[in-house]
Amino acid sequence: MDIMANSLLAAGASPAMVHAIEEILEFTSLSSALCINIGTLSPDWIFSMKAAAIRANECQKPWVLDPVGVGATRFRTEKCIELINLKPCVIRGNASEIMAVVGASIAPTKGVDSSRSSTDALEAAKDLARVAQTVVAVSGAVDLVTDGKRVLGVSNGVALMQRITATGCAVTALIAAFVSVNPNRVLESTAIALALFGLAGELGAEKANGPASLRMHLIDALHMLDEQSVMNRVRIAQL
Amino acid sequence: MDIMANSLLAAGASPAMVHAIEEILEFTSLSSALCINIGTLSPDWIFSMKAAAIRANECQKPWVLDPVGVGATRFRTEKCIELINLKPCVIRGNASEIMAVVGASIAPTKGVDSSRSSTDALEAAKDLARVAQTVVAVSGAVDLVTDGKRVLGVSNGVALMQRITATGCAVTALIAAFVSVNPNRVLESTAIALALFGLAGELGAEKANGPASLRMHLIDALHMLDEQSVMNRVRIAQL
Amino acid sequence: MDIMANSLLAAGASPAMVHAIEEILEFTSLSSALCINIGTLSPDWIFSMKAAAIRANECQKPWVLDPVGVGATRFRTEKCIELINLKPCVIRGNASEIMAVVGASIAPTKGVDSSRSSTDALEAAKDLARVAQTVVAVSGAVDLVTDGKRVLGVSNGVALMQRITATGCAVTALIAAFVSVNPNRVLESTAIALALFGLAGELGAEKANGPASLRMHLIDALHMLDEQSVMNRVRIAQL
Repeated sequence: MDIMANSLLAAGASPAMVHAIEEILEFTSLSSALCINIGTLSPDWIFSMKAAAIRANECQKPWVLDPVGVGATRFRTEKCIELINLKPCVIRGNASEIMAVVGASIAPTKGVDSSRSSTDALEAAKDLARVAQTVVAVSGAVDLVTDGKRVLGVSNGVALMQRITATGCAVTALIAAFVSVNPNRVLESTAIALALFGLAGELGAEKANGPASLRMHLIDALHMLDEQSVMNRVRIAQL
Repeated sequence: MDIMANSLLAAGASPAMVHAIEEILEFTSLSSALCINIGTLSPDWIFSMKAAAIRANECQKPWVLDPVGVGATRFRTEKCIELINLKPCVIRGNASEIMAVVGASIAPTKGVDSSRSSTDALEAAKDLARVAQTVVAVSGAVDLVTDGKRVLGVSNGVALMQRITATGCAVTALIAAFVSVNPNRVLESTAIALALFGLAGELGAEKANGPASLRMHLIDALHMLDEQSVMNRVRIAQL
Repeated sequence: MDIMANSLLAAGASPAMVHAIEEILEFTSLSSALCINIGTLSPDWIFSMKAAAIRANECQKPWVLDPVGVGATRFRTEKCIELINLKPCVIRGNASEIMAVVGASIAPTKGVDSSRSSTDALEAAKDLARVAQTVVAVSGAVDLVTDGKRVLGVSNGVALMQRITATGCAVTALIAAFVSVNPNRVLESTAIALALFGLAGELGAEKANGPASLRMHLIDALHMLDEQSVMNRVRIAQL
């Protein structure tokens, strides 16, 4: 939650972390977007997650799903599928996670970091996007974003970002913020969020000496991004 | 919890984070002060919070309340009022939160960051302090601290601190520590905690390039504060 | 959890944080090692902790225990003893915690930071190691590691590390990772994990200006450690 909230604040968004069923419906109605992250899963939280997803749909607020570690346990996979049935507008995971979701992989994920490349998961991602009528983003050396037809490739970012816990979670939250601003262009907003977070990582890496200083400089860079610093540095390609 | 605990450690205090009802009474008896923060609220935790507040009062230990996001949902507002009825010695929030507590505002808070200035909330704060017989602190460009009669204004701090998650929570925890050392001067202890945390932010900002490096330098500065570095730099005024 | 996960990632391990009983058995079977930390205790989590410990034993996966704050409350002490009865291969705590576990101390621990030196706890540690048939590590100016017969002393580290929350938790997680790689030399693996984490702290301290920058530089240093940087700097002695 810490890096998610700080990334959102650095980017100019206004995060709140809520999980009690007693208030999550009301909070969801107030918010501009909802990010559901199954990282530290519990039955209580799943109940709240589903309620929030349903309410977001009722209010026509975009909601995005981060299927952290899906495939590692049957429980996690089952709950993740139930959430996907509630129609997120974006699902972002690493290659192992996306492949686990679509059953394209029978290898259980090892942890929450990915052991597969994003291109391995491209076909799985397109299938998932079509079946679930959503945008699917696969993080990797090249991030892939697809709505089942079009595919965008985002090649910003540095490998060391994978050695910081919850960078994937943070970029998913950022996607939610970006989609809320531009709800009619979900594919593009998702790609741009990934590109800018990746670019912040590149700028941060110029000053970093390891993963912890990269984390700090990445968030600083995210806060300082402007048209000037972004120009010619965002690498999004139609694939 | 991370920035709260690290701020307390940096300042020389000894934090412990406890929420299970099975041990919170015993832990409260051992502690010098109690900080209750409703940020990530759940019914279980509220039960523990109330029990801890009651025990703190029984033991004559000071307890302080951070009404995070109050006003955003009916549940949060209701539980916050119930906690205030258990007589905290300090309540610290931003202007939106304090105004929500006293019903001076009908605009729901947007998130946990404030959309109002602290001066807007001064009259609300004084009312709350009188009715609840407590000290109320309103964070803002100028922090206001009042017991309902006297008002102190603290003008340390930098705006960028608002772009770090839980800085408000951290300073509330620091207030608890300061009040425990000087329980007969709650108003002054609260103002000094706010001033020193703000000053640490100012010192940190001299080295920072964004919110994440500010967070680091702020905590470092808090740890290094001494009479020399504080002298002439704390800005507390009787208003 | 943040500093634990980031320390593990920096050291090349692959952390996942799991507590739901619905998936913890399956997750434990997949993992290479299990770290149980009683920091923010709740009855639900204890149930999961015990189930995970039993499963780890069934699968012959090493599991290590961090008895955070044991001795502070009866509940915490009782649950800790119940966990120790499930046969962790390593228990790492500070002197107060280890002494509380063995009942060698009747002084309740003040918080989660230690008020006693590690040498005070040596006899207690040896007793505990013999009775519980485990390796016991006592953090302090000199870390002590014992299996009840042999005692290793690790004198890496800097005092300022105690002013960072959860550095003890992080090193316990690192011990779990190290033991999983070398399960037949638990005593030595534990000492080496403590030494390398301490050395990362020393290297970090060369660049740090306070606890928050030490935290960052420590994790960076942990990531950069190689044979060259470690050589002649690890201080482990047979006592």
